[in-house]
Amino acid sequence: MINIILIGFGAVGQGVAELLYRKKSEIERLIGKYRVVAVCDSKGSVIDENGLRIPDVIERKKKGAFDGKKSIEVIETLDYDLMIEVTTTDVHSGEPGLTHIRQALERGVNVVTSNKGPLVVAFSELNRMAEKKGLRLMYEATAGGAMPLIKLAKNDLAGNEILFIKGVLNGTCNYILSRMEKERMTYSQVLVEAQELNIAEADPTYDVEGIDAAAKLVILANSLMEMDSCFRDVEIRGITEITPEAFEVASTRNYTIRLIAEANREKRILKVSPRLVPFHHPLAIRGTMNAALIKTDLAGDVVVMGRGAGKYETASAIISDMVEIYRKRYE
Amino acid sequence: MINIILIGFGAVGQGVAELLYRKKSEIERLIGKYRVVAVCDSKGSVIDENGLRIPDVIERKKKGAFDGKKSIEVIETLDYDLMIEVTTTDVHSGEPGLTHIRQALERGVNVVTSNKGPLVVAFSELNRMAEKKGLRLMYEATAGGAMPLIKLAKNDLAGNEILFIKGVLNGTCNYILSRMEKERMTYSQVLVEAQELNIAEADPTYDVEGIDAAAKLVILANSLMEMDSCFRDVEIRGITEITPEAFEVASTRNYTIRLIAEANREKRILKVSPRLVPFHHPLAIRGTMNAALIKTDLAGDVVVMGRGAGKYETASAIISDMVEIYRKRYE
Repeated sequence: MINIILIGFGAVGQGVAELLYRKKSEIERLIGKYRVVAVCDSKGSVIDENGLRIPDVIERKKKGAFDGKKSIEVIETLDYDLMIEVTTTDVHSGEPGLTHIRQALERGVNVVTSNKGPLVVAFSELNRMAEKKGLRLMYEATAGGAMPLIKLAKNDLAGNEILFIKGVLNGTCNYILSRMEKERMTYSQVLVEAQELNIAEADPTYDVEGIDAAAKLVILANSLMEMDSCFRDVEIRGITEITPEAFEVASTRNYTIRLIAEANREKRILKVSPRLVPFHHPLAIRGTMNAALIKTDLAGDVVVMGRGAGKYETASAIISDMVEIYRKRYE
Repeated sequence: MINIILIGFGAVGQGVAELLYRKKSEIERLIGKYRVVAVCDSKGSVIDENGLRIPDVIERKKKGAFDGKKSIEVIETLDYDLMIEVTTTDVHSGEPGLTHIRQALERGVNVVTSNKGPLVVAFSELNRMAEKKGLRLMYEATAGGAMPLIKLAKNDLAGNEILFIKGVLNGTCNYILSRMEKERMTYSQVLVEAQELNIAEADPTYDVEGIDAAAKLVILANSLMEMDSCFRDVEIRGITEITPEAFEVASTRNYTIRLIAEANREKRILKVSPRLVPFHHPLAIRGTMNAALIKTDLAGDVVVMGRGAGKYETASAIISDMVEIYRKRYE
């Protein structure tokens, strides 16, 4: 029996809980029996060491925040095997996820997270800690959401050296740029539209200034190219100064503009910036989709595209990490 | 120590052997010690139970076919853990790969193959046999070469239901169609060009009539969507009758034409045929690249693109399968 605690119960946390409930038989066929023994939000928790009934937990959440033990108490005192950490990202302090993950690893349990903060701030510390204790720390959902990228590069391309990665890693920026390309609207006009559609947040800084893409890039560079980088190593330029005229000029040469995140180990490039992309290039992808081009020594160019965000999409990446850890072995 | 026998020593077999030699330290870091104890071609074999020196084997092959024991004798008598089967595909009989794989599984060893034939002819028989004996039968290289697809769908998208797959699965056809699109040349003109560039074979039937794409589709449908299909279930139309005028008409509506393989379980579709594809669609990919769109219930649309063929590309997929089987566990 795999005992799970779920730390964070916003959209992603609720998505994970729903899938663990709704897809229980399919997932248990892959990994064996599991149950969720605690769910925590920023205020408190609900706990049942015999397994919570998820619909009841969601119902209770609808009535307001949880009371009961705080997350950190649950992490430090309960008996469990896996922590799913899906609290909100702070790329500067890494908190509260950083403390959660440190404590869980300290206690000897596996961790799956969608939280970029802890990995951007303390990538090697956390990974060394997990490795030393023979634990798994998995984070597919941190970079690209439902777009397969980290396990793809590590497993499906095993034996390959990753020479560079170039990606469209922020769906909000890509939506804005796609609309500017198509409608020749200004940045501000499209931003308002994106905010109305809930594609951009009220304070869009984190996305449009390239911070989110840079955080993802640090995680990819460290996990797939051993670049041992941190957030301040990334050269960042956002999309706020791009004009409709820039698209006009680009299009006369069959180019468009996209916010491209690039990590290149040999050239020591770690950069997020708007770049010209040929119309027919896979990174000229439109809408809120993410895309990544992985250049390898053996397989050549591999491109992947997928939904970079969303409740069930992110939850799907978390489930795939959980399956990777606990999948029944054939040997 | 993992003892490997390599059955088939054409381009792909030699590619695999070279990588097992050249990348030995990288691969052993992932899976532990291995050695190649036998290499067979259609005429005979070279054997050393203490491990062959690959450059010597390649040197010897250059001087002509091997003599010594036949493949089947090696498979049935040698002491080994893994068979890598890379003989040529026959989608109707499945031979000689089918007998090789049956015998290897019978003897209780794991199998990695790039050979579509055995899987098209006897997918469930071979997979049931492997499962019953607790063995692994891996075949990433059969569908899409270096384009990650089978492990991606099974592992990276674990927990998802695959609703349908649409793919450009034959690089030769895609090259021909891309050139017809761009240059408005006739099918026959581009075929000659493709043959000169060694992109099409002297007898191009297998590719241009859609047979290769259909074989791949059967493997994808069976392994990822449990469709339990066989070759004759696929409705197949090739690309030989497409005219430059068809591209002309399509382009006025911003479409191009591609050979699309589609498997849809619910609609019971298994089809390879030329189809209209919007210019900006990921399946409007150009050149010899392969692409696949995987529609899932949770992750939404996932697209992947990569090199569908080539000596090292195919070998890369085989190595990734081998790593998947033997990767050191963290638990």
